[in-house]
Amino acid sequence: MDFRPINIADKFEQFSEHWSPKIVAGMNDYHLKLVKFQGDFVWHEHKDTDEVFLVLDGEMVIHFRGRDVRVAKGEMFVIPRGMEHKTSARHECCALLVERAGTVNTGAAGGNMTAPAEDWI
Amino acid sequence: MDFRPINIADKFEQFSEHWSPKIVAGMNDYHLKLVKFQGDFVWHEHKDTDEVFLVLDGEMVIHFRGRDVRVAKGEMFVIPRGMEHKTSARHECCALLVERAGTVNTGAAGGNMTAPAEDWI
Repeated sequence: MDFRPINIADKFEQFSEHWSPKIVAGMNDYHLKLVKFQGDFVWHEHKDTDEVFLVLDGEMVIHFRGRDVRVAKGEMFVIPRGMEHKTSARHECCALLVERAGTVNTGAAGGNMTAPAEDWI
Repeated sequence: MDFRPINIADKFEQFSEHWSPKIVAGMNDYHLKLVKFQGDFVWHEHKDTDEVFLVLDGEMVIHFRGRDVRVAKGEMFVIPRGMEHKTSARHECCALLVERAGTVNTGAAGGNMTAPAEDWI
């Protein structure tokens, strides 16, 4: 049992890669992850799980087919399971994700932006 | 489908009660809740679920039997299932909780600090 709180800013200092979520905590069969990103991700969906984005710094856009949602610092959005989406950010964006353990960032789409599902820091 | 992002600050402005978590989003069978609190809560445990606290403003202490953990703004802590604990805050603290849907704030302890498990804002 580790009784140290998880300092979000300290964790963000430990990595600089984009589009590569890092797990900072587990709860039940879920993971809390931190991610940095800039530019455009790939279209994908998660068939079996919703996905939470809480923007901690910067601003992101979640693109759905026919609709874009701008999510700024201090805002949260839950992407429903099975809904095709693409994330983007003009400038670097830092976010906290809540995802079921084992969730792959590109869903079933695959490709070279696929990151490890189990990358703890 | 609601395409508006959830603005955390706006949600916090919608209530002032202490120790009464408000649900702001659902993901799968989990809820994301906001809570304000000050003073001391009651000793309790959640037998079947871990519980996440992310402090967004102020500072809290999570008391365990024989050990206290101070969690400041920008820090997170996961309280393991089955571990008796009590939360406290000297000054008002604002936090985001991630909990399995239906989690009652006082666990099995009950008492007059028990809040509704399904209070959406």
